[in-house]
Amino acid sequence: MSNGMAEVNAALIQRLSDIVGPGGALTEPADVEPHVVEWRDLYRGRTPLVLRPGSTEEVSRILALCNETRTPVVPQGGNTSLVGGSIPFDGNDEVVLSLSRMNRVLEIDPLNDTMLVEAGTVLANIQQAADDADRLFPLRIGSEGSCQIGGNLSTNAGGVAVLRYGNARDLVLGLEVVLADGRVWNGLRGLRKDNTGYDLKQLFVGAEGTLGVITRAVLKLYPKPKAQRTAFVAVPGVRPALDLFSLARGIAGDRLTAFELMPRIALDMVRKNVPGVTDPLQGRHPWYVLLELSAARESDMGTMAEDLLAEAMEKGLVVDATIAASERQSKALWHIREEISGAQKPEGGSIKHDISVPVSKMAEFIERADAAVAALIPGVRSVAFGHVGDGNVHYNPLQPAGADKAAFLARWQEVNDLVHGIAHDLGGSISAEHGLGRMKREEILRYKSDVEMAMMRSLKATLDPNGILNPGKTI
Amino acid sequence: MSNGMAEVNAALIQRLSDIVGPGGALTEPADVEPHVVEWRDLYRGRTPLVLRPGSTEEVSRILALCNETRTPVVPQGGNTSLVGGSIPFDGNDEVVLSLSRMNRVLEIDPLNDTMLVEAGTVLANIQQAADDADRLFPLRIGSEGSCQIGGNLSTNAGGVAVLRYGNARDLVLGLEVVLADGRVWNGLRGLRKDNTGYDLKQLFVGAEGTLGVITRAVLKLYPKPKAQRTAFVAVPGVRPALDLFSLARGIAGDRLTAFELMPRIALDMVRKNVPGVTDPLQGRHPWYVLLELSAARESDMGTMAEDLLAEAMEKGLVVDATIAASERQSKALWHIREEISGAQKPEGGSIKHDISVPVSKMAEFIERADAAVAALIPGVRSVAFGHVGDGNVHYNPLQPAGADKAAFLARWQEVNDLVHGIAHDLGGSISAEHGLGRMKREEILRYKSDVEMAMMRSLKATLDPNGILNPGKTI
Repeated sequence: MSNGMAEVNAALIQRLSDIVGPGGALTEPADVEPHVVEWRDLYRGRTPLVLRPGSTEEVSRILALCNETRTPVVPQGGNTSLVGGSIPFDGNDEVVLSLSRMNRVLEIDPLNDTMLVEAGTVLANIQQAADDADRLFPLRIGSEGSCQIGGNLSTNAGGVAVLRYGNARDLVLGLEVVLADGRVWNGLRGLRKDNTGYDLKQLFVGAEGTLGVITRAVLKLYPKPKAQRTAFVAVPGVRPALDLFSLARGIAGDRLTAFELMPRIALDMVRKNVPGVTDPLQGRHPWYVLLELSAARESDMGTMAEDLLAEAMEKGLVVDATIAASERQSKALWHIREEISGAQKPEGGSIKHDISVPVSKMAEFIERADAAVAALIPGVRSVAFGHVGDGNVHYNPLQPAGADKAAFLARWQEVNDLVHGIAHDLGGSISAEHGLGRMKREEILRYKSDVEMAMMRSLKATLDPNGILNPGKTI
Repeated sequence: MSNGMAEVNAALIQRLSDIVGPGGALTEPADVEPHVVEWRDLYRGRTPLVLRPGSTEEVSRILALCNETRTPVVPQGGNTSLVGGSIPFDGNDEVVLSLSRMNRVLEIDPLNDTMLVEAGTVLANIQQAADDADRLFPLRIGSEGSCQIGGNLSTNAGGVAVLRYGNARDLVLGLEVVLADGRVWNGLRGLRKDNTGYDLKQLFVGAEGTLGVITRAVLKLYPKPKAQRTAFVAVPGVRPALDLFSLARGIAGDRLTAFELMPRIALDMVRKNVPGVTDPLQGRHPWYVLLELSAARESDMGTMAEDLLAEAMEKGLVVDATIAASERQSKALWHIREEISGAQKPEGGSIKHDISVPVSKMAEFIERADAAVAALIPGVRSVAFGHVGDGNVHYNPLQPAGADKAAFLARWQEVNDLVHGIAHDLGGSISAEHGLGRMKREEILRYKSDVEMAMMRSLKATLDPNGILNPGKTI
């Protein structure tokens, strides 16, 4: 696709490059390449220029000039999007704006439990800085070693700690944002209460860079839990897993910090395709839950994990269980969960979904989706795993063993229609945590009301009247 | 003020009344009166018509007609605003839209921990419905017996449980909203994760009815804590109180569910002006903290409260303390906190502020504000109390004993300037939880940047182009 705008001309490239100075502008194909290819290689684009500004002021000047010249801008963090949100189209008429040089932790206030960071700071570095200050920054996702906080906020990232700490939206108190025309909005407040008009930061969180470019953020920190228990638990089915979730919430409250569901097939694939992984439990069980409890100190943990599992077994919700006896064992259990995505790859084509439904509808969703997909493609292997405590499941039908991969993947849209249709029917969402990006921008039109789309379009037109910010994504 | 629009004529009154049917339209002065007077009598207005629709459909038809005829509409819940947000002006050219007949709890989903309610449902009834389902709806504010959830959401209400559960914004998953032109947006999702475009509900939460009218909401429920401890604690000063807060967060984590600060003068006034209140502790201390711990069950509470207070005493952060031994004693301690507002009234004029600052700046704020106000008005008695764990303090300089009330209150703006200026200087807000309404609509212009005001105005123009929704409030 082209945005119908002229290719970026040499004079403009020069003017933009001048703003960021030497080293801040990339034009050589080898330098540009990592910024125009999605990491799974699902999306590839072209750009004549990657800009790497070093300050908010430079971002401001870039956007002002791009707005004036109607030059489309693709804001980019760690480029770990799963929906093509950070990749330019192939018209060679868009400039990539990488925040990666703005990567400093600027301030930590332990008593206020806040941290001021630049948008390009890698998530793992933020986690580490919090840890160094005896605090926790709880956002925890697979790509944390390379994704950047600006991207996390722009996509309202989720991950494995949402159950307790919420999505990225819930972890930010203030933002600095450069608007489409280059104006800078300083909303860097470190306040837990501020009712002085519209909460503007909410507009930019989850907007995937289409309404403004986040340059700095005030993040919320939490006390660091000093005691944890990781349990790997066999459950007889999805419904008992949900009952176990309810029981665990009742007993542990907020000390239940993770609750991840996975089917036997996922465990089998991880064991087969990832070296060194063993089965934590004896026997074969249809479903498993990885469960984590956290407490402020060891004395508050006590026998909570053991009591919970004993009660769950008595009620028939848990068939077998193991509690990690060491940090190393805990990591081994988490390793199984983290490798599920990768372990599917050698098994052939996989049609991915990132859906959410009310927690009370989760079992019905999986049952209906399994039946519908199996009826459409006999022999399909459904891998349903993820953050079931949030009502969020990654539902990935995998090609029948030995079937033709291309033929299977050709049915992507058909399968999407079925799975998304069932999620929608149950009051759910077709993108729980990955966003819309390029992948679901058209798809969402089938599920949102005209009123909602009209409201979204009017916000876009209000904040980015020339449509220069990440055009063709989200909306 | 008049909105420069024509008075509502008889024909229009008839057409609007026809929408809601008999009993849904109030025009008799005695019936209208409760809807045009603020409960503290700080604001009075006029209206020819109070509409009490019984359904979203009726709200939609009312707004469509008002938009077409450019008739201003004042949305109203329980009319408990502290900033005049729900009162019409005196031009007799605005219609009041009361949601009070839409007052049903429609659905509770215990496994998803959600509740679907109509906007006019009284907060206490929602709390009760949650309790009946063995769940907690944690919003807890002084006016809970009469305020309505639509108003709570429109003003992003705070209260005493924000520390643990967040503001009203954090307690809502989905909204149904009637837009200015009568279109209905159904965003009634019960999902904890949904990244499919802009999070539109955020626009209406805290907008004080200026961008749309909330008609229904999906609320978040929580497990009901089965064990609680209420402690009343004497501390040597504000800084030690903040250190105590930090210690308590570290030990109890989320089981610290309230942390309210009050000065000796507040306790004295409550004892003097409220019958039956005794001093919970011996001796006189400069500051007190009311602290609440909550746990899922008694076995999780254990000796946490005792351990915390022992450690705090050892560190010199707490001078004396008592833990309520019964529900009755706990209520008596909370009663002191709840009566502080009322107990100031017999003492004369009081210039009220609802400020927030980063928690780490709270002591500095109180010290600087005390010094500045005392320098301006010798003998002034500063009453600083409230949700200090959220960085939110109600800072109320009270007239010098025996001074002239009117002369003192005449200095309202001068005192505001001082106090708000100090809060702003410390990165704070001039309205932490009460909103802007009429009271602070002009005042805020001094503290917000031009960029922020321009963004707010453009949102208002986008969503309410004819300016019919609560004009003259907030923005």
